[in-house]
Amino acid sequence: MNHIQFDKVNGILKLLDQRFLPEKEDWFICKTLTDVIYALKEMVIRGAPAIGITAAYGCCILIKEISKYDDWQGKLYRGLENLAASRPTAVNLSWAVNMMRHKLEDLQIKDPQLIYDFWTKEATSLHEFDIEINQKMGKLGADLLEDGDVVMTHCNAGALATGGYGTALGVIRAAVEQGKQIKVIANETRPFLQGARLTAYELAKDGIEVKVACDNACAFLMKNKMINKVIVGADRIAVNGDVANKIGTYGVALLAKEHNIPFYVAAPLYTIDPNTAKGDDINIEQRPKKEVAFINDKKIIPDNVDVLNFAFDITPAHLVSAIITEKDIFRFPYDFKGL
Amino acid sequence: MNHIQFDKVNGILKLLDQRFLPEKEDWFICKTLTDVIYALKEMVIRGAPAIGITAAYGCCILIKEISKYDDWQGKLYRGLENLAASRPTAVNLSWAVNMMRHKLEDLQIKDPQLIYDFWTKEATSLHEFDIEINQKMGKLGADLLEDGDVVMTHCNAGALATGGYGTALGVIRAAVEQGKQIKVIANETRPFLQGARLTAYELAKDGIEVKVACDNACAFLMKNKMINKVIVGADRIAVNGDVANKIGTYGVALLAKEHNIPFYVAAPLYTIDPNTAKGDDINIEQRPKKEVAFINDKKIIPDNVDVLNFAFDITPAHLVSAIITEKDIFRFPYDFKGL
Repeated sequence: MNHIQFDKVNGILKLLDQRFLPEKEDWFICKTLTDVIYALKEMVIRGAPAIGITAAYGCCILIKEISKYDDWQGKLYRGLENLAASRPTAVNLSWAVNMMRHKLEDLQIKDPQLIYDFWTKEATSLHEFDIEINQKMGKLGADLLEDGDVVMTHCNAGALATGGYGTALGVIRAAVEQGKQIKVIANETRPFLQGARLTAYELAKDGIEVKVACDNACAFLMKNKMINKVIVGADRIAVNGDVANKIGTYGVALLAKEHNIPFYVAAPLYTIDPNTAKGDDINIEQRPKKEVAFINDKKIIPDNVDVLNFAFDITPAHLVSAIITEKDIFRFPYDFKGL
Repeated sequence: MNHIQFDKVNGILKLLDQRFLPEKEDWFICKTLTDVIYALKEMVIRGAPAIGITAAYGCCILIKEISKYDDWQGKLYRGLENLAASRPTAVNLSWAVNMMRHKLEDLQIKDPQLIYDFWTKEATSLHEFDIEINQKMGKLGADLLEDGDVVMTHCNAGALATGGYGTALGVIRAAVEQGKQIKVIANETRPFLQGARLTAYELAKDGIEVKVACDNACAFLMKNKMINKVIVGADRIAVNGDVANKIGTYGVALLAKEHNIPFYVAAPLYTIDPNTAKGDDINIEQRPKKEVAFINDKKIIPDNVDVLNFAFDITPAHLVSAIITEKDIFRFPYDFKGL
């Protein structure tokens, strides 16, 4: 899915606007850094790898935009800082901006047009690399899926969260490309409904049969043998194999174990954080009340009642049947020291 | 909570309109049978016991409405049939209408005013009986709760689902009335959000501390010791103790077991169905796509994608730590034969 499109000649970035999916396929056009920062802040685009790629193209847009000014150098560094800060918790965002800056500093190019050309190549190659590793991961992981499988997935670890192929959904895509018949059940994934809105959209678009179920239905569907495998993505993986991912993942993993259903995680190697020994070391972000309390601007909870809105949870390694990366499929017990 | 109010003198039924909670406290006024049928069909009121009580008052409204006609007898039986059919799957509805009709037939009263007086007494006593057994159940069950407990509940098994006290929430109310400090976490309960909308509303109204969490958060909250007990209601209980309740209950029960958290069911004795030997005998209703696919009239799922919308699930008896009724607290292994 080509949802991040960069027009090198004119320096224009087109993003499929995820805020309006699945109702409308609107393209959000970025011509200035302000546009890019808005797109990131307002979740026109989300998903760690997709955010990183967007930020890299954002650097290109910035240098083009400011090249006409004499003091473009000062503007450049301030702009990069603003870009990196547009979503403070997104690690891939600051990583991508820093990567672009360091590569530039190493080369010492001083002409805006040359910087633009150089960065355009870098951003494009980051984008292509993301698709490439997801395709590799998909091919490796596809061996775990059999013809006729019904696979449950949680949240959106798909094309829309990455450069265009997906991690968990990339594995499903690769199995389908191998000619296997795979059906998918997408957990709707409250509060943001990424499963209902995005996973369902992108799989249907690719002609892969998908049904949506409320998160509540998970245990019932497993018990009644309506799914036989689970694949999810990961936000961060600890050295011991504990997996941080969208809230609800841990429950799905426990229920899968109870029903003897394999539970797979698909994520690029860089998701494994050498500085995180185990899941307990990961601080779980609490997000604002309004994300749970309002749906489509309508209040579903009394004013005087508070909510608990944890964004992620930790799935302990022993519940994870395999971790699929672009390099290899790992199995419990995991030990990613020195990887 | 006095959410079903019948004015005997004028034959008017006032229902707290649950469609608009928690945003607005609107009262839906029923002066005719058509009003009552509308209220049932459109879910102005829901919850099995509350539906039964509303139907009983509906009989009173019907006889008053048609008493001026010569052929009131024919109108009466047609009216009762329409009332009983207004929500085909609600067992308490047809049960209440049949009960009213049989009691009348036994007595052979032939004057509409006398029928009205008789039925008014019957409906009021059904209403009072419901509150009474819930209060008894509450008192018994309250012994299972300790000062300082944080209790998770699923769906709305509260005042708003019953005559005004509640089953699962009745137990919590009774514990609070005994002076225990109890906090509640209400699972929002997709797709209808009865937990977010109704449980949170009625507990906050009573000054009981309640927070709402997405259904997804259940395992995380248990793992992190943010709750230490679960109480839910039941739609039907089999003779072997298997419990049919709102979709998601089975998952909560499994996760509770995994985290060593007691899982209680509170339900009146008549919920135990002597004709249902075990949970597998219960047919699980699939409900329309639109309940999942739309939230507040906004589509959250692509048109060409289907949903799985099972209304209930079955929690096997061995996961249920205790079943609280108005007569006794039962514990596994359950055997309700001959009850």
